[in-house]
Amino acid sequence: MDWREAENFIRLHHAENPVAGPVEPRLREVLAEIDQTGTYTHTTGELTFGARVAWRNSNRCIGRLYWRSLQVRDRRHVDTADGVAEECVEHLRAATGRGRIRPAITVLAPDRPGERAPRILNDQLIRYAGYTREDGSVLGDPANAEITKRALRMGWRGEGTRFDVLPLVVEAKGALVLREVPHEAVLEVPLRHPAFPWFADLGLKWHAVPAISNMSLEIGGVAYPCAPFNGWYMGTEIGARNLADRDRYDQLPVVAERLGLDTSHERTLWRDQALVELNVAVLHSFAEDGVTITDHHTEARRFLTHLEREERSGRVCPADWSWIVPPLSGAATPVFHRYYDDVRLTPAYVHRPPVV
Amino acid sequence: MDWREAENFIRLHHAENPVAGPVEPRLREVLAEIDQTGTYTHTTGELTFGARVAWRNSNRCIGRLYWRSLQVRDRRHVDTADGVAEECVEHLRAATGRGRIRPAITVLAPDRPGERAPRILNDQLIRYAGYTREDGSVLGDPANAEITKRALRMGWRGEGTRFDVLPLVVEAKGALVLREVPHEAVLEVPLRHPAFPWFADLGLKWHAVPAISNMSLEIGGVAYPCAPFNGWYMGTEIGARNLADRDRYDQLPVVAERLGLDTSHERTLWRDQALVELNVAVLHSFAEDGVTITDHHTEARRFLTHLEREERSGRVCPADWSWIVPPLSGAATPVFHRYYDDVRLTPAYVHRPPVV
Repeated sequence: MDWREAENFIRLHHAENPVAGPVEPRLREVLAEIDQTGTYTHTTGELTFGARVAWRNSNRCIGRLYWRSLQVRDRRHVDTADGVAEECVEHLRAATGRGRIRPAITVLAPDRPGERAPRILNDQLIRYAGYTREDGSVLGDPANAEITKRALRMGWRGEGTRFDVLPLVVEAKGALVLREVPHEAVLEVPLRHPAFPWFADLGLKWHAVPAISNMSLEIGGVAYPCAPFNGWYMGTEIGARNLADRDRYDQLPVVAERLGLDTSHERTLWRDQALVELNVAVLHSFAEDGVTITDHHTEARRFLTHLEREERSGRVCPADWSWIVPPLSGAATPVFHRYYDDVRLTPAYVHRPPVV
Repeated sequence: MDWREAENFIRLHHAENPVAGPVEPRLREVLAEIDQTGTYTHTTGELTFGARVAWRNSNRCIGRLYWRSLQVRDRRHVDTADGVAEECVEHLRAATGRGRIRPAITVLAPDRPGERAPRILNDQLIRYAGYTREDGSVLGDPANAEITKRALRMGWRGEGTRFDVLPLVVEAKGALVLREVPHEAVLEVPLRHPAFPWFADLGLKWHAVPAISNMSLEIGGVAYPCAPFNGWYMGTEIGARNLADRDRYDQLPVVAERLGLDTSHERTLWRDQALVELNVAVLHSFAEDGVTITDHHTEARRFLTHLEREERSGRVCPADWSWIVPPLSGAATPVFHRYYDDVRLTPAYVHRPPVV
């Protein structure tokens, strides 16, 4: 524990939150606790502020306009595998809200000196299995082939569809355990297209809530390695990456064929045509089902609003151009046409080393 | 003149070109010339190699697979405005080749101590005028509003269409002069769409050859500030930037309206739909007219081939992700899904300070 990180954070918290009172008494308290225990305990206010600012500092996230609205579920007393799994399911229920998705984070036990906190091995709470076939091809989502193998080795059996929700793999107190995510906690949207009835026959769907579970929330020197958080989807994440990437569901050739496009030459831009229709289907289906989603044009404008607000507040807004610019029609969005500062600020969500 | 830059370049030239013979005699010659004159004169072989390697080092260019094929027109004796203008026109004729476009560079006089070489103020040899109206709007290409104002102040009168080719503005020997680019040196492609006859009625067109004229070719410490060079177009440069950007020809709303798209909500992805059709029209029209052009899918694959070749040759291939990834359907091209080294290598094409 670097006490300077603690001090910087405590000062930031008090500087941005005058209601927290004078900083010096709290600083003395924190430094004394670090001296005695090797770490310190955030107040609820500090935890909430820290989690929100970590979002504000997420240089790859285009959706930060609403960073102050993050709901912080303080579950730091939970440190068992069952407790973690229950809280994850509870998180999904609360965040999903029958489609009106709320950005939320559930903060479970932090790492402490000599005491390793639980970890979730899945990179998101909801992930579709990828079953590796004998010929090396994958049924389902190839991005999850490794964790699927692990779950299978641990005794899990999926239904064998392209969209089987994986169980959570939780490490706690030196053991790995599997916990199913109950069906009723996973809202899904079957995809259809406003103009092409055949689209529904492709049998594509996606889950409503993207909840990242393999990043560590780092606040003032304290690491919360188990702190799943979610926002809502931007359509391109599903339509221009998850379902389109060649090493994911690879649906562009399928959609192009059904559209009757000429795929004999790249010049016809059949990939681009299929990509747009796939994304139209995603946005249309979510909207029709009343599930929160945003499109990349709207979100790009919101991000620039956020950036202006941050600058007016005298803050740098760190941003990574290659992540902020959408993967579809990049130059048609206003975020394409400028550069950004890309500094690393804390608090932050950071990728932690994978559990082997 | 930094003699170390000269030495590094001469050593690179000899290292990559064994036919150039032993490096030491040439190095002594160059250093002696620098001692006497403050600069030195490249051999034709050095100039050719330097111009090609400057292309190889262009971190923003996706089209570098063919860097060895660059035709280098050695016109270093030319240092008058008329001479520059004539060579530019000759360059266009040679590069255009009735549609079979050849990558070429014309190297005019270098800067020398106490002797400022000519400069072309236009950023490309062929550029469409942008006439600023009284209400601040622009007829033509808004990107060229400033140089258009300058040409008008210098007495030029365009026809007042959206696609008037600007005259060259050349600085030489302390004076600025205007020189027209003759019509017959400018091959243009009227844009039409393979499926929508109305597209031709939009009256859009673009020129065949992109020839950059405001970058300085820097080889081994010598600057050639007047060295226009061209490749051929990748369709997205025209269809996803020049004709689509809001601060350029801004044609997405026009195309969307003719397509009958629902523009009442971003969720319909009308911008993305219009963008694809505009790009289909560009590629189709160039191909039908026999004018060399490439699409972003093909070119992305070629770039990865180039990258592999460079790595096999033991060289770093510097690349700027934000320029290499196409502005249309970024994630649908393989160049999106990796990172690049982005070092600065010389020889190089560099942006020189604008002439005020």
